[in-house]
Amino acid sequence: MTSTAAADPHAAGALPAKLVYLFGDGRAEGGVDMRELLGGKGAGLSEMSRLGIPVPPGLIITTEVCGAYYAGGRVWPEGLEEQMRAGMAHVEAIAGARFGDADNPLLVSVRSGARVSMPGMMDTVLNLGLNEATVEGLARASGDERFAWDSYRRFVAMYGDVVLGLKRESDLDEDPFEAMLERKKRAYGAAQDTDLPAAALRELVAEYKAEALARTGAAFPDDPWEQLRAAIGAVFESWESPRAIIYRDLHGYPGDWGTAVNVQAMVFGNLGADCATGVAFTRNPKNGARGLFGEYLINAQGEDVVAGVRTPQAIRAAERAPDGPPALEEAQPAVYADLLAAAETLERHFRDMQDIEFTVQRGRLWVLQTRNGKRTGPAMVKVAADLVEQGLIDREEALRRQEPEQIAELLHSVFDENAPGDVIARGLPASPGAAVGRVAFSAAEAAERAAAGEDVILVRVETSPEDIEGMLAARGILTARGGMTSHAAVVARGWGKCCVAGCGALDIDYAAGTFRVQADGRAVTVRRGDVVSLNGTTGEVMLGAVPLVDPELPEELERLMGWADEARRLGVRANADTPDDAARAREFGAEGIGLCRTEHMFFGEDRILAVRQMILAEHEEDRRAALARILPMQRRDFEGILRAMAGFPVTIRLLDPPLHEFLPQERREMEGVAAALGVDAARVAQRVEALREFNPMLGHRGVRLAITWPEIYEVQTEAIAEAACALRAEGVDARPEIMIPLVGTAAELARLRERVAAVTARVAAARGVELSLAIGTMIELPRACVTAGAIAAHADFFSFGTNDLTQTAFGLSRDDAGRFLPDYLRQKVLERDPFVEIDREGVGELMRIGVERGRAARPGLKLGICGEHGGDPASIAFAHGLGLDYVSCSPYRVLIARLAAARAALGAAS
Amino acid sequence: MTSTAAADPHAAGALPAKLVYLFGDGRAEGGVDMRELLGGKGAGLSEMSRLGIPVPPGLIITTEVCGAYYAGGRVWPEGLEEQMRAGMAHVEAIAGARFGDADNPLLVSVRSGARVSMPGMMDTVLNLGLNEATVEGLARASGDERFAWDSYRRFVAMYGDVVLGLKRESDLDEDPFEAMLERKKRAYGAAQDTDLPAAALRELVAEYKAEALARTGAAFPDDPWEQLRAAIGAVFESWESPRAIIYRDLHGYPGDWGTAVNVQAMVFGNLGADCATGVAFTRNPKNGARGLFGEYLINAQGEDVVAGVRTPQAIRAAERAPDGPPALEEAQPAVYADLLAAAETLERHFRDMQDIEFTVQRGRLWVLQTRNGKRTGPAMVKVAADLVEQGLIDREEALRRQEPEQIAELLHSVFDENAPGDVIARGLPASPGAAVGRVAFSAAEAAERAAAGEDVILVRVETSPEDIEGMLAARGILTARGGMTSHAAVVARGWGKCCVAGCGALDIDYAAGTFRVQADGRAVTVRRGDVVSLNGTTGEVMLGAVPLVDPELPEELERLMGWADEARRLGVRANADTPDDAARAREFGAEGIGLCRTEHMFFGEDRILAVRQMILAEHEEDRRAALARILPMQRRDFEGILRAMAGFPVTIRLLDPPLHEFLPQERREMEGVAAALGVDAARVAQRVEALREFNPMLGHRGVRLAITWPEIYEVQTEAIAEAACALRAEGVDARPEIMIPLVGTAAELARLRERVAAVTARVAAARGVELSLAIGTMIELPRACVTAGAIAAHADFFSFGTNDLTQTAFGLSRDDAGRFLPDYLRQKVLERDPFVEIDREGVGELMRIGVERGRAARPGLKLGICGEHGGDPASIAFAHGLGLDYVSCSPYRVLIARLAAARAALGAAS
Repeated sequence: MTSTAAADPHAAGALPAKLVYLFGDGRAEGGVDMRELLGGKGAGLSEMSRLGIPVPPGLIITTEVCGAYYAGGRVWPEGLEEQMRAGMAHVEAIAGARFGDADNPLLVSVRSGARVSMPGMMDTVLNLGLNEATVEGLARASGDERFAWDSYRRFVAMYGDVVLGLKRESDLDEDPFEAMLERKKRAYGAAQDTDLPAAALRELVAEYKAEALARTGAAFPDDPWEQLRAAIGAVFESWESPRAIIYRDLHGYPGDWGTAVNVQAMVFGNLGADCATGVAFTRNPKNGARGLFGEYLINAQGEDVVAGVRTPQAIRAAERAPDGPPALEEAQPAVYADLLAAAETLERHFRDMQDIEFTVQRGRLWVLQTRNGKRTGPAMVKVAADLVEQGLIDREEALRRQEPEQIAELLHSVFDENAPGDVIARGLPASPGAAVGRVAFSAAEAAERAAAGEDVILVRVETSPEDIEGMLAARGILTARGGMTSHAAVVARGWGKCCVAGCGALDIDYAAGTFRVQADGRAVTVRRGDVVSLNGTTGEVMLGAVPLVDPELPEELERLMGWADEARRLGVRANADTPDDAARAREFGAEGIGLCRTEHMFFGEDRILAVRQMILAEHEEDRRAALARILPMQRRDFEGILRAMAGFPVTIRLLDPPLHEFLPQERREMEGVAAALGVDAARVAQRVEALREFNPMLGHRGVRLAITWPEIYEVQTEAIAEAACALRAEGVDARPEIMIPLVGTAAELARLRERVAAVTARVAAARGVELSLAIGTMIELPRACVTAGAIAAHADFFSFGTNDLTQTAFGLSRDDAGRFLPDYLRQKVLERDPFVEIDREGVGELMRIGVERGRAARPGLKLGICGEHGGDPASIAFAHGLGLDYVSCSPYRVLIARLAAARAALGAAS
Repeated sequence: MTSTAAADPHAAGALPAKLVYLFGDGRAEGGVDMRELLGGKGAGLSEMSRLGIPVPPGLIITTEVCGAYYAGGRVWPEGLEEQMRAGMAHVEAIAGARFGDADNPLLVSVRSGARVSMPGMMDTVLNLGLNEATVEGLARASGDERFAWDSYRRFVAMYGDVVLGLKRESDLDEDPFEAMLERKKRAYGAAQDTDLPAAALRELVAEYKAEALARTGAAFPDDPWEQLRAAIGAVFESWESPRAIIYRDLHGYPGDWGTAVNVQAMVFGNLGADCATGVAFTRNPKNGARGLFGEYLINAQGEDVVAGVRTPQAIRAAERAPDGPPALEEAQPAVYADLLAAAETLERHFRDMQDIEFTVQRGRLWVLQTRNGKRTGPAMVKVAADLVEQGLIDREEALRRQEPEQIAELLHSVFDENAPGDVIARGLPASPGAAVGRVAFSAAEAAERAAAGEDVILVRVETSPEDIEGMLAARGILTARGGMTSHAAVVARGWGKCCVAGCGALDIDYAAGTFRVQADGRAVTVRRGDVVSLNGTTGEVMLGAVPLVDPELPEELERLMGWADEARRLGVRANADTPDDAARAREFGAEGIGLCRTEHMFFGEDRILAVRQMILAEHEEDRRAALARILPMQRRDFEGILRAMAGFPVTIRLLDPPLHEFLPQERREMEGVAAALGVDAARVAQRVEALREFNPMLGHRGVRLAITWPEIYEVQTEAIAEAACALRAEGVDARPEIMIPLVGTAAELARLRERVAAVTARVAAARGVELSLAIGTMIELPRACVTAGAIAAHADFFSFGTNDLTQTAFGLSRDDAGRFLPDYLRQKVLERDPFVEIDREGVGELMRIGVERGRAARPGLKLGICGEHGGDPASIAFAHGLGLDYVSCSPYRVLIARLAAARAALGAAS
């Protein structure tokens, strides 16, 4: 009771006269707008009842009563008993049964109900009102003695747990009733609970009650009213339970909200063949198709549907299998008609697809609960578009209801959900989708197998730029090390390719061509060529081939994206390094390229040798000679990309990674390179060693390369300018922009801007073309953020490189964070992985400073994001709030970004 | 003329009537306060003349004339010629010679003179007034024909260069006169210029003039007045020379300042035995002792003193060698008396030790220049203290005049400046001082040789914490890689040990036990055991043993430091990890320890095994068992340090570096460790591999270790708390503070603070001691700066870790920056190495944000710096301005920091 000890949250106040609200039979005293007084559940039940939905009748004790209970020192406020009695009479009248009546007993459920759902609070007590007398009545009414005694047994156990607290008080922290049940099953030789006969259950009830007496010193209550009062008191007490307090503190909910108590008539779907229980969606949750969709079980309880012991039947005739059992529509047409009517009413009222739980008791439909239905990505899109068409919601509302992340489901293959997979390991869900193929342990092998027509899964401890061709050839990528923003993850997401990263359980042996893993105690060895399946959405690695389902793009998508484009303020560009990627990004609606990395181009087979020659050069002239060989190839690269993005800006980042990445790492490979270049192998090895860095992330890269070797950026600029001139001569509207990476000081950018502009001017003059390229910089260092004013003097645009900015702001290497970030997330030291969602307080604050100072110095400064965060909905919302001009993300996230940008503009929570 | 093209800086204004100011013969029309009008040189000469110092007479054309010259379109302003004539008459009268007179010619020098010294401007023209007639007069007057013609030759060359611009206009960019001189020397078989006879010089004058005619199309002027007008015009023009403009732009000096022109009578010290030239300090610049100190040459020119061809004689009799030539005091007592008087006047007037250039012409003393004399560290201290005692300056002024960096000279051995060293390589001057010893290539070898009584120089490619014992044993450390803040540099500075780092020229071969280096074309190989000398102040590496001189602490130091302590606001603490360091820091006046690193303690031979066991542990209990063995050793460490610093705070930083650093890196060593620990060698190798990081700087270290393995910090805290309790029981005033490193989020610190406080409370309760330790954090990540408000809620103090903050703000690894930082400094992309002096705009701005937000959230928050910058005077001034409470630095920089802090408080420029 720590929180009440400090300050009693339930300050005494005048309690209104009305303490209990009734509902049932098409009426209710409350409604959905009275959550604060009636709690979420009570308000919802009242609303349904008002709408004429057949809801089992019940009553709600208000949250104010809870407040008064505590304010008065845990006493039952005056007038409550009286109003309860009147309320129960109301319930009895509608239910046609009487509380405590031996012949036709009314049973009720008792539940807590705060204004928001709070898992920390009291569990439900079902079947309250049973005793030695009423249980017999239930047996008679149901014609099933076993059912009656099992209900009684369950009630005693539930009551013993949540009202008497017997489980909580047990020293062993085990459920005493559960232990007794197990003993009884052994005594009767029963394998399942359901094998116990009525007699055994009757014995158990007696034993449970004896246990309760022994532990509490009081007889288990037989009086239904005593049961009810105690259950209500337990609900009030649960509001101040340690679990509830922790939960409230965690979410910042005030203690004085209090909880309501819901008391509702029980209905049974298992009283005979005219009884049933089921679940119905008002539309198909898989594809959004209109019409009731769901299943039910005859003569069953709700938990039977969940348990999956019996195969459920379809609700609509159209949906049942030709040789299957009859659908509800056929078996009980009147009930079906009632359900259809209820579904329509509820959907129209709540203006969204509903997920409805119902029970049929003796041919009468009872709706127990309704809520907005969960749905797949395709269904999300179709339902929203259809609801707009039906006039139920407007376009903005349709956009607000999109969960941008779910759009990814529309673009990637998924596993057939009915096909079970043999999961042998779990890694990080680094890039969504599903992939099946044969295992290859090197990029070369992957490329070879793929060329031979095989589907391949590339398995590496980690990947590096040298593996690019093998990664491209593979269906999916699996790594043992590296996080959500490791090389494998970033590259795979850029390609929309399935990737499971950082799967630490893999013990890879390249030499043997195997990986081993411990799966549920089994030691599994996977050999080169074996088939595995990867789920990039869940991170699962499965043995063998799991069947795949291809995605279908719902036709409504385009309409929805059109509305999104009208609503959003943020531009959406893509990160793309090849003409193919650029074309794909354009198909997805990208309005330009926000980040075109030039280093990937350097790895092409036709140029890596020249690149290495450049790196190994001792003198500027040798370096220039090697660069001169790269120039025409780079020019072709740029021509292709600029052509694919004609009419839109293409922001090309000049070389960024440390040169070390381009050199071979293994002895044998070095020798090959040396032979190809006609130099000494020792020289290559020496240069590789000389370029090795302690902290390459913080090393000689980005603009620093160009300060040391200006000719690298000069040649790249030449290639860009020549490509632009050539295209414009053809009449193609090429719009390159040049971006200098890793700028930390204004002087760096000033220096490079001058050089880049000079080269551009020279090329333009030689070609006789008017060419004025925007020149800007990545803002990816904290120093760049705080000195953004000085840097802006030399920049036409800023593009926030939030990956590196996150690394430097936190002092956290993406590649190494896998060692401790999981601890941080588990222990809640960090709420979220800052490489996935922008850390607003820290990284975001640096960005805010950068935006403020940059814009103050240069009002027209164009601002964007081109880190991985550019495709994350929450980060896009942040970018919108910050007043950026655009976000740039992987082509496969462009749709997501367009939607997220629209939602941000509409003020939807992300 | 780019800068004038934009906007003419010389706006036309009314020119005052007085254009020329005269000085000489104990009088002057100007004075030292007229720098703007007369330029620095003219103002100084005027001041000296006013003081009655015998200055050769002269005149000054004001800076306003320069302005009028440009405003009028490069014309000689009206009235100038007339005032010049009058001025020259004044000079002639005092000098007793006439300008252009064939018998007794007055020669003059012409010099530019801006209000501040500007290296970009015109060189001097000497001996102006010589022509075919006056040269004969000079020959007669001096009785030295060769001298007269040599003077004439030099004048023509100088005039040709600086007035006619012949050198500048030469295509070959070589001095045409120099080439002719060389040819002449070959023709006469003369080895030196001085071997040329008068006839040859006479020929050269004719040839020089012919060359000038051929190049300029005009005869070389013989008319002294024409020479003078042209020289004055050249001075004006030099104000707008490209070099001068660049220099002005660089320093932000406005173009409208203009330059004055100084025309001054020449005096000669080489007209006979009653002539001389010399340099005199008013006090001894080596140790500050009072009394004239200097040397002179009889019958010589100033340049002869500099050239060192003849051995100069002492000025004071007391200073001459017993068998040396007579001192000036003995040879020319009257001149000596005049010099003494002049020296006293000047020192009294300028209130500082003066460095005086003088010439004696025919028994008459002329003072040519005076300026504040450069001095050694000891002299700096003694002179300032003496001047205070003499009442010439006050204490604040004495402090303002201290150059804190020079204090380092008081603490370290230096090489005997008279002993030449054979310099074979140059590295970074990483830690000042001098060291001589035999080369060892491993820490073990260094320790072994040292134990055997040898002086050792440890030579490594780079050092790591494993080398600590060898580094400690060595006299000096030399590394081939790493910058000013590499491991070797930081550790050496902490110990006040000489270190030359990043000496890239060394080619070290550990296997052969040699290093090779190319020195001026020689290939030098140094073997294990060879003797080398290191100069940590200059970065020089020398072959063989260079004699050492021990430092002497001037007795005035203590007095001066006392004044500093009264003046400063900043506290000064030391970074110290051992009782010895703590004691030394205390001797130097440290007021506590600002950074006690605990990791160095982990490397002790007696505990590294337990540390490794802890790291290799698979389970928490094994880790705790290993930690339990470390605990008593750590407690003893802390007891020693706390005892040495009794009465002062000791900020102990809990474990910071990645665990990887504690494990062996080489196969053989791993096997040794495995054997010692009784585990599998493969297990050790595997763990080493698993702990390897891509970017260890941004990896699993600091507080992150404690989030993963809380027991490490718990045990360290236990050791600290137990040490404090034990000492307090003895009556020792132990004041530990606990510092958590690498905090980036408030949640990290909140978590650790709770744990640390709990351990402290537990220990205190068990010991029955009242113990409440301050708990704070390093602020060394940009994210910590911007979220300082939230972090401050859990911190009693912040200590800015400016090393790591610089690394993360710039995204710059200290260990790798050596590859490109030199390019940055050379190209002026960076003005200073940010690891040496705090980068105010970037890192400093982050600190400012951190201070502002931290103090706003917690007004009493204590703030300090404990990075390397804590000992850098400029950074200390910044810390003062930022309002920090203290700086912490290496013990050997405590004196420097105390002085720098005082100077900052007094507003002295740093």
